[in-house]
Amino acid sequence: MSLEAEVLASLADARIAARRLALIGTDLKNRALDHLAAALRSSTDRILAANHEDVARAQAAGDAPAFVERLTLTPKRIAAMALSVEEVGALPDPVGETIAHWRRPNGLVIRQVRVPIGVVAIIYESRPNVTVDAGVLGFKAGNAVVLRGGREALSTNAVLAELIAAALVKADLDPHAVTFIGNPDRAVIQILKRHPEAIDLIIPRGGNALKAALAGSEVPVLPHFDGICHTYVDRAADLQMAEEICFNAKCSRPSVCNAMETMIVHAEIAAQFLPRIAARMRAAGVELRADDRARAILSDARAATAEDWDAEYLDLILAIKVVDSIDEAIEFIARHGSGLADAIVTADAAAAERFQHEVDSATVYVNASTRFTDGFEFGFGAETGISTNRLHARGPMGLKELTTYKYIVVGDGQIRK
Amino acid sequence: MSLEAEVLASLADARIAARRLALIGTDLKNRALDHLAAALRSSTDRILAANHEDVARAQAAGDAPAFVERLTLTPKRIAAMALSVEEVGALPDPVGETIAHWRRPNGLVIRQVRVPIGVVAIIYESRPNVTVDAGVLGFKAGNAVVLRGGREALSTNAVLAELIAAALVKADLDPHAVTFIGNPDRAVIQILKRHPEAIDLIIPRGGNALKAALAGSEVPVLPHFDGICHTYVDRAADLQMAEEICFNAKCSRPSVCNAMETMIVHAEIAAQFLPRIAARMRAAGVELRADDRARAILSDARAATAEDWDAEYLDLILAIKVVDSIDEAIEFIARHGSGLADAIVTADAAAAERFQHEVDSATVYVNASTRFTDGFEFGFGAETGISTNRLHARGPMGLKELTTYKYIVVGDGQIRK
Repeated sequence: MSLEAEVLASLADARIAARRLALIGTDLKNRALDHLAAALRSSTDRILAANHEDVARAQAAGDAPAFVERLTLTPKRIAAMALSVEEVGALPDPVGETIAHWRRPNGLVIRQVRVPIGVVAIIYESRPNVTVDAGVLGFKAGNAVVLRGGREALSTNAVLAELIAAALVKADLDPHAVTFIGNPDRAVIQILKRHPEAIDLIIPRGGNALKAALAGSEVPVLPHFDGICHTYVDRAADLQMAEEICFNAKCSRPSVCNAMETMIVHAEIAAQFLPRIAARMRAAGVELRADDRARAILSDARAATAEDWDAEYLDLILAIKVVDSIDEAIEFIARHGSGLADAIVTADAAAAERFQHEVDSATVYVNASTRFTDGFEFGFGAETGISTNRLHARGPMGLKELTTYKYIVVGDGQIRK
Repeated sequence: MSLEAEVLASLADARIAARRLALIGTDLKNRALDHLAAALRSSTDRILAANHEDVARAQAAGDAPAFVERLTLTPKRIAAMALSVEEVGALPDPVGETIAHWRRPNGLVIRQVRVPIGVVAIIYESRPNVTVDAGVLGFKAGNAVVLRGGREALSTNAVLAELIAAALVKADLDPHAVTFIGNPDRAVIQILKRHPEAIDLIIPRGGNALKAALAGSEVPVLPHFDGICHTYVDRAADLQMAEEICFNAKCSRPSVCNAMETMIVHAEIAAQFLPRIAARMRAAGVELRADDRARAILSDARAATAEDWDAEYLDLILAIKVVDSIDEAIEFIARHGSGLADAIVTADAAAAERFQHEVDSATVYVNASTRFTDGFEFGFGAETGISTNRLHARGPMGLKELTTYKYIVVGDGQIRK
């Protein structure tokens, strides 16, 4: 069988599973999740053994320590996966929810009802926990999920996929409701993107290589791409608050998309604020790359180049820019931000109002850290990631964001005049 | 200037206009709409003169009468355009609406707020009223609209675009907020679809040629494509009601996407129902194409071929299929429908429940005509068309469906633990 035929056969199975899954009740879905949580716990040793293979392969290949760290599972991480499966089980089922309903003058009753999207393909890179987290979320939202994990985690993913399929079967469900495509051939992504009749949505979680691979996709794509996040410290900022927020936004987890990459500081408070935040950042190992005005204050900061303003470092590096006005800050963010998360620190209500109105990002913060852009922190109880798309879903994606809707219109013989 | 440079220059202007437009108030937008309505009325003769050129060209080219009819404007149609502009003005502004808001345990207040999508390109065919209708709706939702009308209506569209631009200028707004791309070169669509950085969404309204032209678009596409709509007359149907509904669904306006193309009849009532509906359809000039079981009753109906079940006739032709069960009807619709609008006629509550639950179409009807799938009939006050997409917006598209959202998060110094 050719690779294309193999992939299309899997997708055909997924489509059948999707139609069935859309119609089953919450209890049955949750039963499968309970089985999966139990299986993850009882198979911890097996998962770890498979993961050791992946980790050994990555180390032998000389992959970066941060990469190997993301790939590595521990008993604690597996326990966390099992717990998160149970937590998704406990979340309300979005399917069947009435979003809105109204009655027309002609007596028609229109109800807008949440339904699954259908077949959702999730393409992701090294972290094997995504196999379970994303699979389970898509499934709970009633979608057949086609998982395409990175080749680095192939052994781990194969075991996890087997456990998911077994849990589905144990709950008398179609195991194709969560399909893992194990074939590591890069051509798989090129096949997936050419079949809009087979896949309703592709959610890619990854870097620029994945973005490029999906260019021209005939299947709609809901990108989870880069986060170039800014914090603007206004002239009216409480500087102690600004210091805490900026430090948290940069240093609490520099490798994630909601971490701050560029700090924008109003000129009026720059001389006062920059030395203290710089000292704290440096103590945490942050490399500072500053524009000329900031370097006039932070003489030993490296000079920022044009590339720095558009960089997603995902690392302990911070670009610093001094501006003369909130207008300049807003304009700078519009030009260089990725529209994921941007913050202002200010005690000036008018400045806060302007910033939240004029900055067009998925999440706009006033006096808080950009690090809160996260499904759990938003109270969604789960997330498949952060959408950098403007359509369908924007920002943290939970269960609702993995659904669509239909209208059910009930009459008693109405015809259109 | 090359065609690509010309188009990109227009798109760059539209992007600037979009950023400005997103921030202006409802009053200013409505003022521009008032100016436009007045201009349409006072320029009726000029619009008609331009339209005569288009119509003469179409007639000389031997275009079909139905095509020429869609292209033709009359004083009445222009008055209706002006009225619809005022009606859009009277609709509530979706921009700035709070969709949801909540407070997190850590004190963060999260508000989900409706915002414009950005730059929306609308590609459409002959009807020149779309230039005004779609332009105005996209504008009221705060988007810069890039209009790409059919070459057949070029003279009319040029005048309408000029009136729109003048109305914007008269309201002190950026005239690029509604940009009409007049160049009739087909390559324009190929350019548009390659620039996701310049366009946030393409809404195509047209047939299969347009669908094919947009394949592989790098810009997200919200298709408004085919409607293959079914009405299933259940064994428990009130046959008088079924006759009225089917007749209305087929004959009230056969050329539109929400018209019925296939009628599915339960075998138990076929002998009773088919002769009466067939007589009525035939009297209205409808050609019947029936499967063998239906032809056993309607002996002079033409035999349906496999192609008939997947045809969007948009004409006075009806395919007829007899089934033994609601399951068979639901399965048939899943296989052959386009997911736009499907109806059941039944007095059996259980059958109605199953149909509305299991048929996965944008609009599912119980005891009503599929012809109600329309933004005005749904009470949206306007529409850009009917989305056949599963993502972002499904079914009738009004103002809300032309927006996205952002989250505004207000804190007092929160950092993430």
